Amino acid sequence: MNIRLYNALILTMEPDSPVFAGEIWVKNDKIAYIANRDELSEQWNKLNVPRIKWDLELDCKGNLLMPGFKDAHTHSAMTFLRSFADDLPLQEWLNDKVFPMEAKLTADDIYDFTRLAILEYLTSGITSIFDMYLNPDAVAEACLDIGMRCCLVGGLNNFTSSIHQMEDEFLKWNKTGSLINYQLGFHAEYTCSKELLCGVSELAHHYKAPVYTHMSENIREVEDCKKRNGVTPVTYLDSLGVFDFGGGGFHCVHVTEQDMNLMQMRRLSVVTNPASNLKLASGIAPIAEFVKRKIPVAIGTDGPASNNCLDMFREMFLVTALSKYREDDAASMDALNVLCMATTQGARVMNQNKCDSLAVGKCADIIMIDMHQPNMQPVHNISKNLVYSGSKSNIKMTMIGGKVLYLDGHFNIGEDVEYLYKKCNAIVKRICNSTFLK
Amino acid sequence: MNIRLYNALILTMEPDSPVFAGEIWVKNDKIAYIANRDELSEQWNKLNVPRIKWDLELDCKGNLLMPGFKDAHTHSAMTFLRSFADDLPLQEWLNDKVFPMEAKLTADDIYDFTRLAILEYLTSGITSIFDMYLNPDAVAEACLDIGMRCCLVGGLNNFTSSIHQMEDEFLKWNKTGSLINYQLGFHAEYTCSKELLCGVSELAHHYKAPVYTHMSENIREVEDCKKRNGVTPVTYLDSLGVFDFGGGGFHCVHVTEQDMNLMQMRRLSVVTNPASNLKLASGIAPIAEFVKRKIPVAIGTDGPASNNCLDMFREMFLVTALSKYREDDAASMDALNVLCMATTQGARVMNQNKCDSLAVGKCADIIMIDMHQPNMQPVHNISKNLVYSGSKSNIKMTMIGGKVLYLDGHFNIGEDVEYLYKKCNAIVKRICNSTFLK
Repeated sequence: MNIRLYNALILTMEPDSPVFAGEIWVKNDKIAYIANRDELSEQWNKLNVPRIKWDLELDCKGNLLMPGFKDAHTHSAMTFLRSFADDLPLQEWLNDKVFPMEAKLTADDIYDFTRLAILEYLTSGITSIFDMYLNPDAVAEACLDIGMRCCLVGGLNNFTSSIHQMEDEFLKWNKTGSLINYQLGFHAEYTCSKELLCGVSELAHHYKAPVYTHMSENIREVEDCKKRNGVTPVTYLDSLGVFDFGGGGFHCVHVTEQDMNLMQMRRLSVVTNPASNLKLASGIAPIAEFVKRKIPVAIGTDGPASNNCLDMFREMFLVTALSKYREDDAASMDALNVLCMATTQGARVMNQNKCDSLAVGKCADIIMIDMHQPNMQPVHNISKNLVYSGSKSNIKMTMIGGKVLYLDGHFNIGEDVEYLYKKCNAIVKRICNSTFLK
Repeated sequence: MNIRLYNALILTMEPDSPVFAGEIWVKNDKIAYIANRDELSEQWNKLNVPRIKWDLELDCKGNLLMPGFKDAHTHSAMTFLRSFADDLPLQEWLNDKVFPMEAKLTADDIYDFTRLAILEYLTSGITSIFDMYLNPDAVAEACLDIGMRCCLVGGLNNFTSSIHQMEDEFLKWNKTGSLINYQLGFHAEYTCSKELLCGVSELAHHYKAPVYTHMSENIREVEDCKKRNGVTPVTYLDSLGVFDFGGGGFHCVHVTEQDMNLMQMRRLSVVTNPASNLKLASGIAPIAEFVKRKIPVAIGTDGPASNNCLDMFREMFLVTALSKYREDDAASMDALNVLCMATTQGARVMNQNKCDSLAVGKCADIIMIDMHQPNMQPVHNISKNLVYSGSKSNIKMTMIGGKVLYLDGHFNIGEDVEYLYKKCNAIVKRICNSTFLK
């Protein structure tokens, strides 16, 4: 497949690269050529452009091409609980509403609700997800069937899965070299026995692999851990050797100086989930502090039961706006920094370094931003327009691995979207017995 | 004009009215009939539906009709500074970046940039705005030419406009009975002399009219006022009789117990602007406290130079999410309450009581929410879907005064949108000398 995306503005997210006018050529699943307009017109004859056989030539009409967003923390299939049980504190919400309903989910349900989430990722320009959930195989199948890129992360806990199962998944999904890869992980300190965590640590040491987990999301979690173990979750987990080969924490809202020192030492990353942290009254993560210490920060939506949407524009705005509020400094966390978190840093957390920016040889995970909508005008500064006034309504195209999966509001996923909605509503009727359903 | 919107879900925002399936008929600029599906089918022959001559019949395909959003605080024409000067503290941003650029604006510029903002309001389902800006006449003309509903509010200050001019505008724009009305107002305590404020008070007394102003937006403003006048802005302004006939404050982030007592006594409203307040590091308003005291709360975007977008979905999510965070209570500020702020309470602040809900005889200011997008599925609870996972990408139609101005991504405003974008970029090139412009 040869695809030509021409007449575009391009934001590569390569270091210090400004926005320029030009075009991008895609060959199969990779970027084959990127040129600015002037270079291209000089090389036009040499490249013999008119004689290349294009499978698709897309006139971008001055719209912006940029790397797709990386949703670095999500539980896709939790779409099944969207708007089911909001307005509750975290632990109550988990224990009384989420866990009992999740117990009723089949692998097929997870497959279908992951597919529902993927549709939403595509509408929001998200080309890759870092997904922790029950039954990673079902999540992977949903992604493969549609063409979504996904890094699975182990969600090990005392109730489901096992070390042995995670190791199998780790080996299976890192072997395929396709859209799916896998990072070791567990649900959280408060859902894992010491024995289990030691097992995770052994696995990390055996494969010299990083480990990811929910960490220090709210105060109660931290206080409970201190009661149980005498120290904070970061310190406790580190003491078991879990982070000896790096990794990182989802949330990290309530961390101490000592926690951050440890995180620096172990080269841990943070995946921040600002909408979820507000909505569950968990708090505001100290993003400016992480950045000052060069702790890499990526951005996640968290699952749609706690957010409740999968919209990176909302998250990007919140990362900068909440940092400004928290630091009492309107200059905190500029737009380009936040864009970097939402693209390149997200890719690195997921060990998807080939998807982090637009460059020759990298994965063709490209989105097109509609600049012809009023919220993107006038054009003083494109990065600021994206982070401060951008919206998922600006997503005109989402391409993953060279395949155009979403274009001008239409999905190209070989599936009837309405049929999937009906199926999903029937499943939630069975599981949750909701009263308002079409 | 007779318009029939059929095969819809309907959320009227009338007290205690649930969502139901049915249709809405519009005659000229008013709602002529609303019925649920069962009632309608019983009355089908009596109403003689097949013989009514419809100018437009729109199959809503199961999508949701609801009252348009009311953006209860904005400065539309500030689109000209979008992404021009972010990441600065409020006073510096105002004094060094905003005021000098505003001084260069002509009435024609304000007209064009208000039109740019109106396009964005339409894409966000906003059918009415409470607009404070230089040259209200130019703002009104832009609204009238497109068909936008607008309540102008006086922006009196020491540098532009005058009491006399505001009185003229007040009389002129409240006489027309059309899309435009006018409320008395002034910019803020810190930009108005005591003499000017006494003039506002006299006018309020003369016309028994409410008065609106920016009030207690950030700590510096409150502290400066206390230094100058010995009391907080609310107390000071009230002592001059400004609020003797009601009115309200935009922002109200930093208010005291005594301020809130006064606000209750004078029946003042609050218009909250959460995105702007975060982005300028002003703070988080005590919305739960206002609601507990039955102080009416409406929602505004603030101007696009401080937000930077005009998106009520972002604001609605922030109102509830920030309240949950501020009160440390994930149950704070439920979705239906927030929807009410964004529709009915907004209309009341603007003295547009005929636009607050969907009912026979009310203004046909109706929006259609696309339920066939993945972020609105599954359907456990429509209000929660709207507030927690809704997005401007769900706005399928925006109708104001019975005119469909926006439908399926297309504007019906008798104007070439691209031409307006070009014009706006040329103006900012002249005024701001920006380097990145198409």
